[in-house]
Amino acid sequence: MSYTLPLARLIEEFQKLPGIGPKSAQRLAFHVLKQTHEDVRNFSDALLDARDKIGYCQQCFNLSAQSVCEICSQPGRKHNVLCLVSEPKDLYALERTGEFKGMYHVLQGLISPLEGIGPEDLKIKELLARLGEPGVEEVILALPPSIEGDTTSLYLSRMIKPLGIRLTRIAFGLPVGADLEYADSMTITRALQGRQAI
Amino acid sequence: MSYTLPLARLIEEFQKLPGIGPKSAQRLAFHVLKQTHEDVRNFSDALLDARDKIGYCQQCFNLSAQSVCEICSQPGRKHNVLCLVSEPKDLYALERTGEFKGMYHVLQGLISPLEGIGPEDLKIKELLARLGEPGVEEVILALPPSIEGDTTSLYLSRMIKPLGIRLTRIAFGLPVGADLEYADSMTITRALQGRQAI
Repeated sequence: MSYTLPLARLIEEFQKLPGIGPKSAQRLAFHVLKQTHEDVRNFSDALLDARDKIGYCQQCFNLSAQSVCEICSQPGRKHNVLCLVSEPKDLYALERTGEFKGMYHVLQGLISPLEGIGPEDLKIKELLARLGEPGVEEVILALPPSIEGDTTSLYLSRMIKPLGIRLTRIAFGLPVGADLEYADSMTITRALQGRQAI
Repeated sequence: MSYTLPLARLIEEFQKLPGIGPKSAQRLAFHVLKQTHEDVRNFSDALLDARDKIGYCQQCFNLSAQSVCEICSQPGRKHNVLCLVSEPKDLYALERTGEFKGMYHVLQGLISPLEGIGPEDLKIKELLARLGEPGVEEVILALPPSIEGDTTSLYLSRMIKPLGIRLTRIAFGLPVGADLEYADSMTITRALQGRQAI
């Protein structure tokens, strides 16, 4: 292709982003060329700022630009319930519901022997330190229903149960609005296992 | 949402891009956070560079970082055929086929009375200056089959025909691989009008 050099370079950079193919990358690059200098400067600054300033919350290991994150320092949250998630994106998915008012702990991964990720690679030591302090009455495991999620849940249950803290795991089953006919067997199996008295 | 500020800002910037919704914007922002500082710096530089350095080719009005674009200065191209397009993206679509070895002229728009765009808003004066010089034997109109494209083609034909230059327009009809059954009436009408002796 005969794109002028800075355009070719911008298209290439956009193509490195997940889910952006050559056509989308070209569309995005053309869009950038139509923006004001100030708008493009803002975008560029936002990229550098995010990468340079965002680290992890010292307490829950969520993404944070401060040493303690917005959620940990939010007044009015219940400190007696701790929700365990694998990644910050799972935390944000829970926050979007507005249902959960407790605290979080981000493990930053899941135990995966295949990928060589063991318990020592996750923020489990830090979790146990938090549970060692008095106050937490329930730990909710919000880990995905996968081999890694199940393995990590099993491992954590062995560590947490002896502490005498109530331990629960979020429910797996049919998503709201789904048809039994089109659900996969694993989901139906989980839904049967997790059946509740009515 | 309780995103930390630089993350919220980056997600917002990604959401301003065409075709990027809140979920994609979050995915892209998380992707950026996982890149090295150098990778993010490269992306940020590419944005600023493209916006600051890219202007228009003095000859054909394609996007270019130099005063004369890569295509106009490419050796071996035929200077006797001039292809007229509305936008640089149309030029790149033609270039991708590798079929056309002539020169281009980018009008930078189409005549649209509804949007208040007249012939004087397009690069038509510059086109006529190019055609005033000897050398061009054929002008190909590669304008879209829309009201604006047809209006612009009609206007240009009135300007160019008196110059004694061969004037053609690209063919409109059924796209390759399409079914007559599912083609829209306008496309079939155009295909009938453009029928050729075999």
